[in-house]
Amino acid sequence: MSKPLIFVTNDDGINAKGIAALIEMVKPLGEVIVMAPFRGNSGMSHAITVKVPLRYKKLREEENLTVYACNGTPADCVKLAMSQLFHRKPDILVSGINHGSNASISIIYSGTMGAVIEGCVNEIQSVGFSLLDYSSDADFSQIIDHGRKIVQNVLENGLPEATCLNVNLPAVKKQEIKGVKVCRQAKGMWKEEFDKRIDPRSGEYFWLTGYFENRENGSTDTDEWALSNNYISVVPVEVDFTAHDKMGYFKKWNYEI
Amino acid sequence: MSKPLIFVTNDDGINAKGIAALIEMVKPLGEVIVMAPFRGNSGMSHAITVKVPLRYKKLREEENLTVYACNGTPADCVKLAMSQLFHRKPDILVSGINHGSNASISIIYSGTMGAVIEGCVNEIQSVGFSLLDYSSDADFSQIIDHGRKIVQNVLENGLPEATCLNVNLPAVKKQEIKGVKVCRQAKGMWKEEFDKRIDPRSGEYFWLTGYFENRENGSTDTDEWALSNNYISVVPVEVDFTAHDKMGYFKKWNYEI
Repeated sequence: MSKPLIFVTNDDGINAKGIAALIEMVKPLGEVIVMAPFRGNSGMSHAITVKVPLRYKKLREEENLTVYACNGTPADCVKLAMSQLFHRKPDILVSGINHGSNASISIIYSGTMGAVIEGCVNEIQSVGFSLLDYSSDADFSQIIDHGRKIVQNVLENGLPEATCLNVNLPAVKKQEIKGVKVCRQAKGMWKEEFDKRIDPRSGEYFWLTGYFENRENGSTDTDEWALSNNYISVVPVEVDFTAHDKMGYFKKWNYEI
Repeated sequence: MSKPLIFVTNDDGINAKGIAALIEMVKPLGEVIVMAPFRGNSGMSHAITVKVPLRYKKLREEENLTVYACNGTPADCVKLAMSQLFHRKPDILVSGINHGSNASISIIYSGTMGAVIEGCVNEIQSVGFSLLDYSSDADFSQIIDHGRKIVQNVLENGLPEATCLNVNLPAVKKQEIKGVKVCRQAKGMWKEEFDKRIDPRSGEYFWLTGYFENRENGSTDTDEWALSNNYISVVPVEVDFTAHDKMGYFKKWNYEI
């Protein structure tokens, strides 16, 4: 049997500390091919590039590891790599390790999870990893073993059809991690607080800032609860956005013009 | 009772024909405030702008209509407008009318639906409209009345919590439209076919192209089926990406390191 073929990508860019940690996490498990953005793509969600062409470059090659980077978004990385680099379907796609949380509603803004969902649409088993530390110098060493165990689970047990995983990890010492919780995405939102400034030509401009507001009332089955209690959160994510249980409500409306 | 306050945005940019049609659709129903990107943002999904500051400008003002544009993405438009323009919560957010389909999996790449989902996260009743004609000169006149009826339904009946609507409209004459179908997102994917070219300096570059592949086996309850049979498709969309029915499967895994 051939070694598992492992596709690594991220949204913080090829030079981020997090992707180096992710490569370290999965390299013992198989043959690794990396295609990641040249530059940081935080907040790029599932964006794809349609107005400019894509380019990619091989950066280095060693035993069981080949590293490419491209000028596109995380979702572009998946599409381009599947089209140009992979001669067979990867056994798993892993994205991250993101510098910062992608729990709760942050999943929809996340380039890390954009790549994961794109992988899932392409019928690749896909997992996103995010550490709750936004610092570019974040310490990923404490969560490598836990992350690897989740990857091993995926390789051994498989993911259900049209389902991927959003894994978030608390930024604590390994011995403080209480374990893994399978949970649902917490209800919450980012409350915007635009930082308004005036440029030297008297023009107004606005920096997006804000804070996360948890909209749960103490439920213990959410990713936010798990993380704030030093558990690793694993949220199964599906690519069907249909609100199936709301169909009946809308069928009752009168649409006659 | 005050007039409904209606927030209009899109992803094709403030000068697109589709947003003019959307303004025409909703203007008879209330007071309209527009905040849309200066430029086209197709494929921007739910991307937000974190590396450059946002700027916006009032473009025109007439009775019951004020038009602004900004340099951000569709999701940025929602955040910035909610922060800077609205003194009370809009009664509805409408996005589009997109030039081209956002049915099936296209929802995840769609800037039009990025704005809608951002509205929904902000607890605004939000609806995206897309016409199945990618042309910049598409004819929106045939579907104005049907679209307005859906907006009226939302204003009168309300949307369930954390649910928004993805409305796609066939590009046919009004009398050929068979009605409205409430449906689920069809299973499908975009099959990439990168168009590889060589630049004048011998560098390779790639244009993203591709075609949509429907993965349904003739089911008649999907948006793709409805549209190909000249129905308007209405898909209720939820912002919770959790695959609730898959939780049990992942709880059985062994996560011990």
